[in-house]
Amino acid sequence: MRLCRVEIDGVAHHGVVADDRIELVAGDPFHGPASSGVAVPLAGARLLPPSVPSKILAVGQNYRAHAAEMGKGVPDEPLLFLKAPSALLAPGDPIVRPGGYERVDYEGELAFVIGRRARHVRAAEALDYVLGYTILNDVTVRDLQKKDGQFTRAKGFDTFAPCGPWLETDLDPSRLRVVTRVNGAVQQDGRTDDLIFSVPELVAFASRVMTLEPGDLFSTGTPQGVGQLWPGDVVEIEIEGIGTLRNPVIAEVLP
Amino acid sequence: MRLCRVEIDGVAHHGVVADDRIELVAGDPFHGPASSGVAVPLAGARLLPPSVPSKILAVGQNYRAHAAEMGKGVPDEPLLFLKAPSALLAPGDPIVRPGGYERVDYEGELAFVIGRRARHVRAAEALDYVLGYTILNDVTVRDLQKKDGQFTRAKGFDTFAPCGPWLETDLDPSRLRVVTRVNGAVQQDGRTDDLIFSVPELVAFASRVMTLEPGDLFSTGTPQGVGQLWPGDVVEIEIEGIGTLRNPVIAEVLP
Repeated sequence: MRLCRVEIDGVAHHGVVADDRIELVAGDPFHGPASSGVAVPLAGARLLPPSVPSKILAVGQNYRAHAAEMGKGVPDEPLLFLKAPSALLAPGDPIVRPGGYERVDYEGELAFVIGRRARHVRAAEALDYVLGYTILNDVTVRDLQKKDGQFTRAKGFDTFAPCGPWLETDLDPSRLRVVTRVNGAVQQDGRTDDLIFSVPELVAFASRVMTLEPGDLFSTGTPQGVGQLWPGDVVEIEIEGIGTLRNPVIAEVLP
Repeated sequence: MRLCRVEIDGVAHHGVVADDRIELVAGDPFHGPASSGVAVPLAGARLLPPSVPSKILAVGQNYRAHAAEMGKGVPDEPLLFLKAPSALLAPGDPIVRPGGYERVDYEGELAFVIGRRARHVRAAEALDYVLGYTILNDVTVRDLQKKDGQFTRAKGFDTFAPCGPWLETDLDPSRLRVVTRVNGAVQQDGRTDDLIFSVPELVAFASRVMTLEPGDLFSTGTPQGVGQLWPGDVVEIEIEGIGTLRNPVIAEVLP
């Protein structure tokens, strides 16, 4: 099932994507969506990020080849970090490239959304706590990442967390192709087979530290091939079994 | 005015602290609290963290003497990081010290809550975007902070963000004494005069990167004198003009 959020006349609704339309649902997706009997066409619908998370967790250097291209070794534990929820961006909306920095990179990533409160969950049961899978672009100012050490600012600009187009609930996350294209040219072509820490391992690891709340978003890291975005570019991330997240890039215009 | 949140029969209410009682308010504190005509005694009230933030921002090495004790120089820009909102802890509730780590430290800090959405705000107007001031204990597993580099895990355990007891809205944040006691003995005794980056500078800096939402919590860094917490300890942070945040420490009991 594909769960989405869609904006209609300025109001956010939950929906289920079925073929070429979105069936709006009553209630919320964490307790079993019930059809409201109303549907809108998928074409032209304004999709929103599929979750409103209380936090966005992410993990660095979770593909060996990407760790190598960043000049890092393979970590012995997941390297957790947080992205500001204010960075979330809807599918199709523009990534705003802030001025004054050398390098703003895309990072195409498989992400998942927590469906049940999770704390001290074992890896063997961890997938029971996952509602579904989506795509996240972990946009990063590379020079600020290096300068600050902490990733908060480098990965926290408004529009730096494009996410969508929806949550796919019926998916095995362990063998998915992840492809990133910029202006149609393939830049990243990885497989989640190569994740150092799998989805269940990430849930187990993070939940030993903190409570994962329903709706929380967790991005699993990016494969090799990161590179720059410039105003005028269009970046697309396609993940097998989910779909494509597409966003244009524009320059920041200061007020 | 002292704005608080208080739990009564399992339900969270907004309130205004007046002498020895809490006047419950209708509406929310961002749009002018209106008295509901109901009051409860302050003594024995179960206060909650005074805000439900969409994010918790914090800043490292913002007092010269603390930067020195951590072996760091004075930063040329604020070093922003995020704490997980799931770490928030009510005044009086126990900080849970996780097992297996060498060093879990208190960090007494002045914190503030955003009252109006802020983006690209200038320092000269920044205080107009602050609703009020409170106290935050930025509890940290020091060995994990060093191991991970990223502060997310080290500062993100559940219970690692005790916050309260309330928001003081009428306060000049620039000249406040910040005292931390463990079991009654003074461990930190600093003054916000010594902040490297002031409250208005922090709002201006962060809002050049990201939108600060009403309710967002921002902790301003800790003065020198950080040290350890052990089960059985009681840690108190007192800030002039605000009050005292007091929490006991207990050992984690794994499920």
